[in-house]
Amino acid sequence: MHIFTVSIYLPPMSQKPVLHTLLSPRLIDLYDAANSIVVIIDVFRATSTITTALYNGAQKVIPVASVDDCISIGKSLQAITAGERDGKIIPGLQYGNSPAEYPRSFIEGKTLVLTTTNGTRLLHMALDNGADEVITGSFPNLSAVCNHLIQKGKNVILGCSAWKDRFNLEDTLFAGAVINHIKDHFTIHCDSSLMAEDMYVLHKNDMYSFIQKTTHWHRLAAYGLEKDLQYCVTPDVANVLPLYKEGALIRG
Amino acid sequence: MHIFTVSIYLPPMSQKPVLHTLLSPRLIDLYDAANSIVVIIDVFRATSTITTALYNGAQKVIPVASVDDCISIGKSLQAITAGERDGKIIPGLQYGNSPAEYPRSFIEGKTLVLTTTNGTRLLHMALDNGADEVITGSFPNLSAVCNHLIQKGKNVILGCSAWKDRFNLEDTLFAGAVINHIKDHFTIHCDSSLMAEDMYVLHKNDMYSFIQKTTHWHRLAAYGLEKDLQYCVTPDVANVLPLYKEGALIRG
Repeated sequence: MHIFTVSIYLPPMSQKPVLHTLLSPRLIDLYDAANSIVVIIDVFRATSTITTALYNGAQKVIPVASVDDCISIGKSLQAITAGERDGKIIPGLQYGNSPAEYPRSFIEGKTLVLTTTNGTRLLHMALDNGADEVITGSFPNLSAVCNHLIQKGKNVILGCSAWKDRFNLEDTLFAGAVINHIKDHFTIHCDSSLMAEDMYVLHKNDMYSFIQKTTHWHRLAAYGLEKDLQYCVTPDVANVLPLYKEGALIRG
Repeated sequence: MHIFTVSIYLPPMSQKPVLHTLLSPRLIDLYDAANSIVVIIDVFRATSTITTALYNGAQKVIPVASVDDCISIGKSLQAITAGERDGKIIPGLQYGNSPAEYPRSFIEGKTLVLTTTNGTRLLHMALDNGADEVITGSFPNLSAVCNHLIQKGKNVILGCSAWKDRFNLEDTLFAGAVINHIKDHFTIHCDSSLMAEDMYVLHKNDMYSFIQKTTHWHRLAAYGLEKDLQYCVTPDVANVLPLYKEGALIRG
């Protein structure tokens, strides 16, 4: 009688963390923020400006929901205050939302208090939903975001700030870019993520011309901000990681 | 002295109606339902089943929000009751949500009372938001929907029923198919619509294989419904127009 010893290789159960894409702040409660890193995405222009300010040496960026908070915190910290509505600096604040306003020669070592319509709001919603960690992302810091998410190995929500709760393309394209770069490290069963990656792959080689079809482009280009918008879809030109800690975004 | 008379041709102001795509029922209040035709889209499978039943001669389909309503209205009208949860007929009801259950030999001349998770809910939300007109759409009646929208010349909301408020691909692909066919007749400044058409054009020639990547496919295919799902993405196989009138969907 022969006895065979059979060795069977059983690969370890998949332990990949889960990635979802949130297309509108209105849907945030459908996802498990408490067990996720939430990436706040507001390509035009809050999160592009935040990473640019930190890349150029800002000490921190304090995102606030209201203009009143912006003014009072700015005063108490002797900080720079910034915010726009409809392409103009809000009365009572000092600067606007353009990344071009924050070169190293101006922002290095300073604190920026920033209020915006969509990105700031989603960031506070993520905190209210108990997000495990909050970072911000946009094309200028694409690689820093991807590397961080791979390295942490936690669940991820790619949070598109949208436009007053309406779906927007530019934030979705950035979510798609992240997915395209890191998908092998995550479990992705999420139609929003499938769509976002498809849209990114479809348009990655004509990004600048495609983005000119979006509603937000038409809104901002009317204020003469084409150069800003071109910068905001350029990968890795301000490649640091804005990480939310104790009320402010700092270099992570 | 010379006097020049200059004739300037001024084209008439664009009078095209406006088209938007709604990606989740949760966002319905962002759009002007009261001045629009709302197209309820629930490709897998409510609106595919509704058009199939009407195409095969059903007198009307009554969409109801709750199982209790389904049972009581079914009794009082001596009608067929139908509804599923998790791929099984709901206890107390007679039939399921599959279009294959409603051939002419069975449904002709009868009334169907139907409850579903997503499509029925969005339909009632559209009515609650004062929609000017409610119709239903899915691939089996693609041409009927397109022809109706062109002929009416009113504002349109393509309403994706989604999955428990989460974005889904199959409803978005149908919205994209409609846009691809009728966009010349409408003003479209809406990122959701741009995306939906892009996704449709990208996948119209591999619809059946692409749709197998969606989360809803995985959910339903587990119940052995692949044939149903294939039917639900086939254009114009039950090409009538379900129009909501006095509490029921009838052939419009």
